[in-house]
Order: sequence, then C-alpha cells, then structure tokens
Amino acid sequence: EGGAAVDIKALERLVEFQIREGIRGLIPLGSTGEFLSVSPEERTAIVETVVRTAAGRVPVLVGTGAEDTREVVRTSREAEALGADGVMIIPPFYSVPTLAELIHHYDTVAKAIGIPIMVYNNPATANVDMTPEMLAEISRIPNCRYVKESTLEVTRVRDIVALCGDRMEVFAGVLGYESAWLGAIGWVAVCSNLAPKLSTEMFHAAAFDKDMDRALALYRRLAPLLPWVGGPRYVSGTKAGFRLMGMDMGNPRPPRLPLPGADMPRLAAVLQTMGLLAEGARQAA
Amino acid sequence: EGGAAVDIKALERLVEFQIREGIRGLIPLGSTGEFLSVSPEERTAIVETVVRTAAGRVPVLVGTGAEDTREVVRTSREAEALGADGVMIIPPFYSVPTLAELIHHYDTVAKAIGIPIMVYNNPATANVDMTPEMLAEISRIPNCRYVKESTLEVTRVRDIVALCGDRMEVFAGVLGYESAWLGAIGWVAVCSNLAPKLSTEMFHAAAFDKDMDRALALYRRLAPLLPWVGGPRYVSGTKAGFRLMGMDMGNPRPPRLPLPGADMPRLAAVLQTMGLLAEGARQAA
Amino acid sequence: EGGAAVDIKALERLVEFQIREGIRGLIPLGSTGEFLSVSPEERTAIVETVVRTAAGRVPVLVGTGAEDTREVVRTSREAEALGADGVMIIPPFYSVPTLAELIHHYDTVAKAIGIPIMVYNNPATANVDMTPEMLAEISRIPNCRYVKESTLEVTRVRDIVALCGDRMEVFAGVLGYESAWLGAIGWVAVCSNLAPKLSTEMFHAAAFDKDMDRALALYRRLAPLLPWVGGPRYVSGTKAGFRLMGMDMGNPRPPRLPLPGADMPRLAAVLQTMGLLAEGARQAA
Amino acid sequence: EGGAAVDIKALERLVEFQIREGIRGLIPLGSTGEFLSVSPEERTAIVETVVRTAAGRVPVLVGTGAEDTREVVRTSREAEALGADGVMIIPPFYSVPTLAELIHHYDTVAKAIGIPIMVYNNPATANVDMTPEMLAEISRIPNCRYVKESTLEVTRVRDIVALCGDRMEVFAGVLGYESAWLGAIGWVAVCSNLAPKLSTEMFHAAAFDKDMDRALALYRRLAPLLPWVGGPRYVSGTKAGFRLMGMDMGNPRPPRLPLPGADMPRLAAVLQTMGLLAEGARQAA
Repeated sequence: EGGAAVDIKALERLVEFQIREGIRGLIPLGSTGEFLSVSPEERTAIVETVVRTAAGRVPVLVGTGAEDTREVVRTSREAEALGADGVMIIPPFYSVPTLAELIHHYDTVAKAIGIPIMVYNNPATANVDMTPEMLAEISRIPNCRYVKESTLEVTRVRDIVALCGDRMEVFAGVLGYESAWLGAIGWVAVCSNLAPKLSTEMFHAAAFDKDMDRALALYRRLAPLLPWVGGPRYVSGTKAGFRLMGMDMGNPRPPRLPLPGADMPRLAAVLQTMGLLAEGARQAA
Repeated sequence: EGGAAVDIKALERLVEFQIREGIRGLIPLGSTGEFLSVSPEERTAIVETVVRTAAGRVPVLVGTGAEDTREVVRTSREAEALGADGVMIIPPFYSVPTLAELIHHYDTVAKAIGIPIMVYNNPATANVDMTPEMLAEISRIPNCRYVKESTLEVTRVRDIVALCGDRMEVFAGVLGYESAWLGAIGWVAVCSNLAPKLSTEMFHAAAFDKDMDRALALYRRLAPLLPWVGGPRYVSGTKAGFRLMGMDMGNPRPPRLPLPGADMPRLAAVLQTMGLLAEGARQAA
Repeated sequence: EGGAAVDIKALERLVEFQIREGIRGLIPLGSTGEFLSVSPEERTAIVETVVRTAAGRVPVLVGTGAEDTREVVRTSREAEALGADGVMIIPPFYSVPTLAELIHHYDTVAKAIGIPIMVYNNPATANVDMTPEMLAEISRIPNCRYVKESTLEVTRVRDIVALCGDRMEVFAGVLGYESAWLGAIGWVAVCSNLAPKLSTEMFHAAAFDKDMDRALALYRRLAPLLPWVGGPRYVSGTKAGFRLMGMDMGNPRPPRLPLPGADMPRLAAVLQTMGLLAEGARQAA
Repeated sequence: EGGAAVDIKALERLVEFQIREGIRGLIPLGSTGEFLSVSPEERTAIVETVVRTAAGRVPVLVGTGAEDTREVVRTSREAEALGADGVMIIPPFYSVPTLAELIHHYDTVAKAIGIPIMVYNNPATANVDMTPEMLAEISRIPNCRYVKESTLEVTRVRDIVALCGDRMEVFAGVLGYESAWLGAIGWVAVCSNLAPKLSTEMFHAAAFDKDMDRALALYRRLAPLLPWVGGPRYVSGTKAGFRLMGMDMGNPRPPRLPLPGADMPRLAAVLQTMGLLAEGARQAA
C-alpha cells in the first residue's frame, strides 16, 4: 500500500483546480497533506511541484513542522530555497514543550530563514496549547508574522488580536466563519480542498464584505461537508471526496486507512447536494 | 548545540551502571531516550551499543514508535536483527488514529518481526488513549504480548488484566507502586535511570514480595525524586541528575532545553538526601 | 454576614436602572442572583418586586432551577402566579442526570405551567452538558421555547439552530457578540448588570443591524470588564462594581466572599475608562 | 411519584443489615442517600432513625453538604444535637468556590459544631476539585479531621498523607482497594450498601491485614457489581439491587429515574453470582 510514489500529475491538477476556483493561497504538507508520511525526497518533489505550478499566482506556504528543531531548520531552508513564500510550523508534537522551549524552537528557525512563519496552534494534534498569552510572547520573534489558530474557542482570536497587535495576524483553523467577525484575515480550511470556491466566497463575504446574510447562507451550504473532513477523517474524507469528484488523489498513507466503503454513499450524497460532483466532473474533463 | 554526536562511552557506562544496580531490563530509545531527536545512524549505534553491552544479562527492548507505519517496520526489523529481545511501540502520535488504524498499525509491525511488542499507552504524549477495551482488541495480535500503561488511572491495570487475560501482561508506566497491587508484572520507570536500585527494590517488594510496609517505605524514599523526572522535565531532570551524580550524559537535544541552572541546587539536595550523590561518585570512580 | 435581608429598595432601583438604560428583559434569581442563597420567602419577595417594578415594560423570566424536580415545579408555578413571563431553568446540578432524566425533569415542569421555559446549558456550573443533539430532544417539549447556551464553543449555536429549527431559539450565555453572527436572538449577559446600555447596543448592532464595524468597536469597549464579571468572580465582581458606581447592592452571600479589597482599584480603573463611574453617579443622583 | 414519604421501617432494616454484616460506620444523607431530594422534616427523621438504630454500635456521620453555608451550619448543628458522631460535607457544588471561600465555608461550620468533619472531595459531582495542596490548607481547620477522596487519581492519597500528616486522615471514595495500599484508613463505598460484608472484608484485608492475595481475590469478586452502582446509576442501581435482594427501598426521587427494567436481568445475574440474592433472601426472612 504505502509503496505508492507521490502522483505529481495529480498534484499539479490539484493546484490548478484550487487556483482556478479562486483560492488565495496554498499550504502543501500540512496535516491533511500527511507531512509525517513522506520521505525527504518526496517532500522536495511536493514543494517544487506546488511552487512551480502556482507560479506566483498565489502565495505558497510550506508545512515544515517536526519534532526536532534541526529538522525544521533544514526543511524550512529548503522551502525558502525552492521559492516558498513562507512556512507553517506546528510546535514539536511529542515532547509537550514549555514556553521557553517553544520560543527557542521558533526563534532558532526564524533566524535560519528569511521568509515569514505561520505559527500553528492545534492542541488536538500537537498536544501542546499555545494560549493567546503564550502567542503574545512568540509574536515578538520577528519572522513569526501569522498564527493559524485551530481550537474551538473563537474568543482566542479576540484575545490574540488584543495581545499581539500588528505583530501577528490571525488565520482561522477550523472556525473560518466565526473567526472572521473577530478580525481573522484568512482561513486555512480543510474543506477548501474539496470546495475551494464556496470556502473562499464564504470567508470573503464575512471577513471583508462583512455581509452576514450572504456569508451565513454560504456557511450553511458548507456545513454538511464539515463532519466529513474533520475529526478522525480529515485525510480519509478528503481523499474519498476527490475520488468521488473524479480527481483521484490516491489513498491515505500509513498509519491512516481509507474511508470505509460503507460511508461513501452518504459522502457522495453530500457532495451531490452541494453541486461538487458535477463540479468535479467538469474539472476532470 | 544539537550537533553533538551520541556519546557511546557514556551509554556503555549507563548500561553497566543499570545492570550492576539490579535493573531487570533496558529500553533504549523511549521518550526519555529522545527517540525523535536521533538520526537513523545514531539509532543503529545506540541499539547496537546497548545490546552488546547488556550481553544477554537483561532483556533489551527498543523503542521503535513512529508516526509512519513503514518506519516502525523498518526500525523494528533493525532492532530484531541487532539482537533486541523486543520492541516498545507508542502509537502514531500525530494523526489521532482510530481503533481500526491502531490495529492495522500494530498488526503490520507484528507480522514483520519475530520478537514481542510492548504496546505503549501514554495519551499525555501520544494524544490517543488506548482504553482497556481497545487494548483487549489489540491483545489479539499475537506479538502484542505486553502493554506499558502510563495513565494516572490505576484501575486501568485491573481492567486490562480482566479483559486481556494472559494474552497481554501489564507493565506500569508512571504508577509502579500502585500498579503492583493490581497485577502489573513490571515497571518501566523514568526514575530508575537515576535510581535503578531503589526503583527495582521498591517494585519487587510490592509486586513479588507483597510486602506493603517495606514497599511503601521505599516508595516514600523515592517520592521526592518523582517531580524532577516527570511532567515537562523528564528528560532535562534526568540529564541534570546524571551530571550531578558525576555521570554526565550531555544536554537534552532540540527542541528540549537543559534544566534551568536555578533548579540545580534543589535537585542536588534531593539526590543528596537519597544518597545518590555518593552513589554516583562511587560509580564514576 | 448572611443575616442581611434582601434590600427591596436597591432591587427596585436596579430594575429602573436597567430599563432606563435600554435592557430588553430581566432574569432575577439566576446564578448572579445567587438563587441558591435565598430563602423561599426572599424568593417570593424578589420575584414580586421585579415583576411589579418592570410593570410590563420588559419581559421578566425567573430563574427556578433546583436539584429536586418538585421544587422546580413549586417555584415555577409561583413565578407564573406572580406574573412572570417565563422561567429560566438550569438542569439538576448535582446528580449529573441522564438524557432521559433531563427530559423527564423539563417535561414535568413544562406540564405544570403555562409560560415558556428557557433551558439553561452551563456545564461549568451545572456539571452536565446538554449538547445540541440533546437539546434537539428537549426542544420537543412544547414549553421549552428558548435555550441559554453558555459554553465557550460558539459552533453550538450553529448546531442548535440547525437541529432545533423554530422549536427552540437561542440566547447566548457568555458569547454574546460571537453568537449573534450565528443566529442567536438574545444575550443573557453578566456584564449587562453593570453596563446595560453598552451591552444592549453591542448585541443589537451585531444581531439585528449586522453592523460588524460598530458592533466590534462596542465589543472591544466592553472587553476589559469581562474578566471582572466572569470566572470565579461573576458575583463578587458585579457587587463590587455596583458599590463603586454608587449603587450598593450589598455583599455576596455565603459561600461567596466579597471581591478582595486589593482588587478594587483595578476594577475602578476599568469602570472609569468605560465611563461607568460617572454613569453610576448620575443614576444614583 | 416523589410524593412517597421516607420509609422508616425500611431504613431501620437497612441499618440492622449493615451492622449485622460487619460495616464499620454509617453515613446517611450522602449522594446515594439523595440528600438534595429530602425535606427538612425528612432529614430530621432520617438522622434520628439511623442514630437511634445504630445505638452506638458503629459511628454515624451525617451528610450535611449544601450550597449555602448557613444551611450547612443549621443541619450540622442538628446532626450533632441528634447524636451524630460527625458530619460529611461536600463543598458548595454550584458556585465553584475559590480556596478562600472553601476555607471560609468549612471554618464557619467547624466553629459551629463540636464533632469532626469529613471533608468530601468529589469533583465529578461538586464541580470543584480540592487538590492535595488545597486540602493541606483545609486540614489546618481543627475539626476537619478526615477527607473522603473520590477522584480516580489514587496518587492523591499518597500526596494527602504526605502534605497533611496526622492533621487529616484519608477515607477512599471510589478506590477502596487501591487507596488502602497508600495509607487510607477507611472506605466510604457505594457498593457496601448492597454488599457490606464483602466490601468490609476486602478493605480490611488490604488496609489492615496487608494481605494482597486475599484482598485482590475479594476485590475481583466485588468488581462485577461496581458498574451497577457507579457512574450515572449509583442511586438507581443501588435501589434496584435492594429490590432484587428482597429489601425494597423504593424508587429514586426526582430528578432521578429508576433503573430501566431492561437492565434488571443483568443486574440480577451479577447479584446471583456474588451470592447476594440468597443473602438478601436470608436477611429479608
């Protein structure tokens, strides 16, 4: 199973699909990108492919989180050398680092590169929670310009804005719609893999047009998709969706398993209702 | 900092110290062994050194946990080839695997090797909690003979014994004394790095001699050391202790930082009271 | 200490203050109203006073939560008889009831009265969490027309709206601003005791005018007050604020203690900045 | 339903059953005694009945926890006047008191009575967690001689013993067997209502005889009963068990519901295996 190589053609197609549908940025090798299941050579190929295909049309941030600070330095430098516009870095996810260790980790990487860092707070996977007070400290590291905030407490956005000022800008993780009303300037969404257009329009309607009626209507259209690309199946549900949409991206890699076949009809029904099956067919054509 | 190579001489000395003091087994490359901060070459050297130095006097289990199942297979096979008696495997610690994924992960590794697996449940670092009910399923995989149970709920030991029968035997993680009274047959302790003799005698007095008075007295002698080798400083406190005892093992590797210098006098006082400073001096002589 | 009787004059003054400042409803005997520290006679006097003083200008809902279902029936009937427009009922807060017990509890009360029930979800004090799925069941009880949702997960509002339809409307508990954008039609705030005008205007700007710029600016003005009327000091901070504003409402009752004197200057500074000290002086004059 | 009066005859029978079976103490009006669902008159009758029936053969502690400190004073004084040997007091369970408020609460009650207080830590119902460090402070109040520790972290017993010395002695709440090995001198068990003899013998074998083989064997005999008198059904399961054993104690009071009828056969099977059905029949004869 896990012997399959990275499908470069499929990756190029995905990048084109995203940009054509209006996405504002790309983040290869995040959690949904299964960054812990690729070899160093595959990592290089993925970054090179995305940067080359995006070709400056949208910014590319590369996920370079790892447990070992030295490895983060190495892959972040590589990302910069390959033309990335920034890196997204989840904290060390095994050792439960202290604040001093987090600052040392981010500072070491920041000094090694010349592109901005998006600090990524996701305690549900990283096992360490960077509170707004901790982020206020981390935001004093010059390159740490952005934070992706992925807890379910939307008041964190309020507090980060209040505590970090213009040193650090907030991208929502899971709560795109909700965070928009509190000052988030972007949304790093899992659902935008399958539904880039709807996701982008929804966030824009809220964060920039400040049009609640339109944004909430779009959010309610998106909502049925969310359980399929969240919780334990953000990878398997995304992969299954692409297959149903005619843009096969292969199976998850170990230790992840594909979405159980018995779940496929319900996911297909959701995608059908949202108009994404036809969409996918058009894209694939 | 992290450029320092593994100190093979210090590792040989540590193995000799442990065996001379009565330890019943060795587990290199566990969490305290900073298994996520070593290169593949360093890993090989560590396993080779421990197996060679132990020379069959005590069993050697090698920590081979990793996020990617394929990597666990590779390092577990290597451990077996180098003469290890078993492997200790923490589940994938980033993806929050489902039970089906856990079973697939352990089963894949079990089929690839001929030595036993100690399944390691430590939700505080691995971010997934294998309950006794889940372990009962995992225990049906032939090679999964042992579990290291590292939550703070000691009733887990009772329930694992009841649900797994003789398919899976329990080693305590943190709660050595407490687990002994519920049927644990071993204890994988952090404190035993610095205090192998006291740790071994305490667990033996409880689990095998069933002598509460003696075991509790030994536990109370050990207790002051526990906060120094637990929580966020199990690595830094252990390294600092070895330095104070005259058996320098170097500093933690990134992302970890050394124990703050200001904490050293209090740790030294604890080691002094326990008689470990003199012990260390004797060993080092 | 706790021997002091209820200060009816101060309560009348508070009701007048609230209505004059634009509040849209009143809920005596909620948590901030220390409903578990009043005698049955005091309860009657409080309800009678608030209903009489409000005199139909705004709706009055009475907090009638209790552990024993029979007591909730008794006090809810009394509230209806005294002219209340509805009751707010926190679930039994000691026994950790099952869903079946919750439904039985609310259904028993609903059948005993003819006014609507606002179901109150506040797991931080009630120790039982009524999830949106559970509320969907409870919303089928005819009188259970409203829910006050007081967790920190604002997506609950989204899910309650989706699952309960028009059977149950949502009032925010703590997250007034955030919930407005998801369809909450009201906000039961602690901060509105001290700042009724600002709280009301903020929620209205968000929920009904859908004016993010204005609402967010008002929210940021309110924000410094929130830590003083939240967490462990929602009663003591509110009481202290009224004293500073010249509208003394006495001390908290047992088991609560007054806000420590050392905290008063910082609270006074917050109220000063918000213009509430002058406001209070004007009201008191 | 809830209209039924307290069955004094059944209560006398229960006290006789407990003492005849070897119980070492009685605690009426605890959580299993549904202390929040009795009227003041019923409370008086219950205390009077238990004290009179016990007649000095075993100590009687009365549960007098309440949210309002003044009520705790009143019922604790009443308990003392009626001949109780002590009181068991859960902290205020709604307001989430601070440490200062907890100390004020217990100190106020302690000064009002001349009998000892068993402080009762049960965060799962009381919603406030008195850690060993907090209990060390509370243990300085002269009358607070005992603590009933009801978390699942058995190391709390170790830490309370270390921090409180002989100022405060520990009774286990849920973890009777486990706590015995750490120095608990008693066990306030729910299962001892139905199985007083087995529960008493098990705890004695561990705590006083220090006989692991015998104690663990008894514990394993008790274990199947535990899920039936724990979690959400400690009251309903206990009531159902008494009915099956021929010692009907009536149904739970609101808000609690009886154990679902569908569960009765499985509970009966457990009681049968433990020999408690025959036991009950003998007692009832």
